[in-house]
Amino acid sequence: MNDIAQTPEPPYYAVIFTSVRTPGDHGYAATAQRMLMLAEQQPGFLGYEPARQESFGISVSYWSSLEAIKSWREHSEHRKIQSMADQWYSKSCIRICKVERSY
Amino acid sequence: MNDIAQTPEPPYYAVIFTSVRTPGDHGYAATAQRMLMLAEQQPGFLGYEPARQESFGISVSYWSSLEAIKSWREHSEHRKIQSMADQWYSKSCIRICKVERSY
Repeated sequence: MNDIAQTPEPPYYAVIFTSVRTPGDHGYAATAQRMLMLAEQQPGFLGYEPARQESFGISVSYWSSLEAIKSWREHSEHRKIQSMADQWYSKSCIRICKVERSY
Repeated sequence: MNDIAQTPEPPYYAVIFTSVRTPGDHGYAATAQRMLMLAEQQPGFLGYEPARQESFGISVSYWSSLEAIKSWREHSEHRKIQSMADQWYSKSCIRICKVERSY
């Protein structure tokens, strides 16, 4: 089961990814697992929290800096997957945030 | 069904609430509905996105300013509910974030 990410004291960064899935898998589950494995290996990766309820999902990844987020976004395999995302999501939104406080 | 919140151009603020639910309802559903109704009436409320998958949930509320978040946290009925949260959540984390970019 998913759990709350163990993140350090702020400040750090969060990427909130909200999405509505298309019907069917289309290789989604395997790709998501592969992307998480790659993300976890990136410098500055701090944690990941996903939840999907019916077709609507929120996932939050945590990073030490904006540079770490940028490096992950530009990762070659990640970029390739981003270009294929339309088959999995009917809509999506990415919000880049600075976590200022947590409790 | 839940959907992506229609938020303005950044900067604005996000409150990421991650939690693990206790078994049973204990009045949770009705209380959550009431709190959302109250939150929507608060000055500076911009939107709300919830997703729960099994017992693990992420909800994100969006606000125009830190002052708006503070006012909502100190709302008398909301404060009363906060003090009762242990019956609903075995653990939880609140992260206050500044949304710097979205796309």
